[in-house]
Amino acid sequence: MGGVKKIAILGSTGSIGRQALDVIRALPDQLKVAALTGNKNLELLERQISEFQPKMFYSSVKPDISYGGEFLSAEEIASHSEVDCVIVATAGNTGLSPTLAALQAGKTVALASKEVLVMAGEIIIREASLHQAQILPIDSEHSAIWQCLQGEENKPQRIYLTASGGPFYHYSQSQLTEVTPEQALQHPVWRMGRKVTIDSATLMNKGLEVIEAHWLFSFPFDSIEILIHPQSIVHSMVEFIDGSLKAELGWPDMRLPIQYALSYPQRWSNSELPRLDWNKVQSLDFEPADHDKFPCLKLAMEAGKSGGTYPAVLCAADEVAVEHFLRRRISYTDIAKVVQKTLEQHQSIGQPSLEEILAAEDWAREYTTRFSLGYCPEPGSRRSLE
Amino acid sequence: MGGVKKIAILGSTGSIGRQALDVIRALPDQLKVAALTGNKNLELLERQISEFQPKMFYSSVKPDISYGGEFLSAEEIASHSEVDCVIVATAGNTGLSPTLAALQAGKTVALASKEVLVMAGEIIIREASLHQAQILPIDSEHSAIWQCLQGEENKPQRIYLTASGGPFYHYSQSQLTEVTPEQALQHPVWRMGRKVTIDSATLMNKGLEVIEAHWLFSFPFDSIEILIHPQSIVHSMVEFIDGSLKAELGWPDMRLPIQYALSYPQRWSNSELPRLDWNKVQSLDFEPADHDKFPCLKLAMEAGKSGGTYPAVLCAADEVAVEHFLRRRISYTDIAKVVQKTLEQHQSIGQPSLEEILAAEDWAREYTTRFSLGYCPEPGSRRSLE
Repeated sequence: MGGVKKIAILGSTGSIGRQALDVIRALPDQLKVAALTGNKNLELLERQISEFQPKMFYSSVKPDISYGGEFLSAEEIASHSEVDCVIVATAGNTGLSPTLAALQAGKTVALASKEVLVMAGEIIIREASLHQAQILPIDSEHSAIWQCLQGEENKPQRIYLTASGGPFYHYSQSQLTEVTPEQALQHPVWRMGRKVTIDSATLMNKGLEVIEAHWLFSFPFDSIEILIHPQSIVHSMVEFIDGSLKAELGWPDMRLPIQYALSYPQRWSNSELPRLDWNKVQSLDFEPADHDKFPCLKLAMEAGKSGGTYPAVLCAADEVAVEHFLRRRISYTDIAKVVQKTLEQHQSIGQPSLEEILAAEDWAREYTTRFSLGYCPEPGSRRSLE
Repeated sequence: MGGVKKIAILGSTGSIGRQALDVIRALPDQLKVAALTGNKNLELLERQISEFQPKMFYSSVKPDISYGGEFLSAEEIASHSEVDCVIVATAGNTGLSPTLAALQAGKTVALASKEVLVMAGEIIIREASLHQAQILPIDSEHSAIWQCLQGEENKPQRIYLTASGGPFYHYSQSQLTEVTPEQALQHPVWRMGRKVTIDSATLMNKGLEVIEAHWLFSFPFDSIEILIHPQSIVHSMVEFIDGSLKAELGWPDMRLPIQYALSYPQRWSNSELPRLDWNKVQSLDFEPADHDKFPCLKLAMEAGKSGGTYPAVLCAADEVAVEHFLRRRISYTDIAKVVQKTLEQHQSIGQPSLEEILAAEDWAREYTTRFSLGYCPEPGSRRSLE
């Protein structure tokens, strides 16, 4: 691929979106912003627009700015002829429809939004294959696996997704019930958004990544294992049929997997990216994850294996539960209980359409909200769920 | 490559040769022994011949056996039309001439003998390129680097060769002078021949591997670093220009890199190969090597950078010095002193011919022997060299 790659960033004001812009800013000879979309952080979006002057933009609240760019929908942007690669870094289910539009237009999608593949993996992979469009992972774990698979002719035997274990890895059950949102928002290694940070502590995030890995690499659930690796230097590993393993390592910084998705199949030098220093990293620790210790991980694995509309319900229930936890309506350990109850009550549909997926999600959101609030009628009056 | 690969093993009675036969024995649908060569261990060679019934064989002492196989020279075997791949696993300089014969016949060479590339890297690489013949590494470190480079379009920025650090990593200088051959022959991780085991303790082995890596991957010496990694699970690493690193890992077992060289570009399942168990491997430690602590490593790096006939002199001097140490004629710390003195006295020749390389080696062998014995006139009467 010669010349400058034209990039659309869906969700440019979020954590991944901002770091993607850092990468593009550092590599003006290779990358150019074609489009930016934001949600409600209009002030930041306007600053980004004025710096990068994209040909197109979108936001859920229409900004009052006048410049040469065109206001288009996310779907129009994702499938636009002036776009080579679409970075999907929006929150929740909003990435679904533009991702489909991009794939149907044959665009390369660099995917950061976990929900897209978790909720609608079967549909997304089918459309990508039908239109010969590539889906490239931006998550550090999936990027690591993808990098390790380069040049390999045989399917791997096992995938190891690494997990930092979160800030509460050594907490007892009673300590966990007392965890506050402030504590849970302190992630030991990665800088990320609030929702993802809580999901990292509960390992729900790792569970969603297992489902994502299943779809990205068409890999059976039983061959995907979680390794607790507190230093987050090894971003994931692949084991081959001869017993050899490959790992991808690096200083934990999301700009690295973002850049790899944009530079692939090449690699680009970028002096702003951090380097691993073996004088500082002296020991790497690993421990197979105890699923019983992380009920959210277990629930996600089960929802993934059961398929149908379960994964969509999982996503929605977790989103609502985390929100309730952050507003101090439920305790930290209630998050898993709310998600579990919602999954138990759900009537799953096999091979669902996009509409059925979104309907299941709506149901889950409503059910979870009622369920959480039923136990905690007034905001602030925390009570443990049974 | 369809069908069964026909393998010639030069040095089948040595440690690598025997493990190569283990791999071939386990994979009868993929591999077949076409030829075996040994040195003086006639008894073992005859057992191997009777088990594998190779079409050709050779040994320095002609065995008194009658079967359908033909007695040919190592060069005739290496270039024979009935051979697809030649494993060069002989000791010292004996691999040089058959390796050249194999490359000139366009054969794939799976290279275990370090001396071949260390002594004559320039000639070997030129002949391989001229005849479009492949050289595949069998050393675990070089195999790891080679595996990590698969599918990568850009040259790496840095190579990390890992080293166990040997059994004396934490010894003081005065403790080192007292090391006995028995102690030095106890390698903590790998099972190998005697010479290689001593070279692993002094890190001379790692120095030879640096020179080998330089030629195999046409990589500058200054970009090759040594990481002490006592567990020997990470077999080596590659750092790319974007700051991402890839590592190859596995349970330390030479059969894995041997098999990869034979299965490449595929991988084969082999139930006899060990699997890494993350319940047992809990921590991986790394530390940049202190070159001052390992004079043999330093000497090898310098000889490699200086080029010419220096690396051949290095090999020969080390071989003689290790032999003298094993016979208790010099102390463990004298090994480096003998090698250094020999290198200092050598008049190097630039871009040497094969004859000049072998002449330099002869000179070094003689000089080192005289130098060592001059200080220790009677076997057994150890004295420290100044």
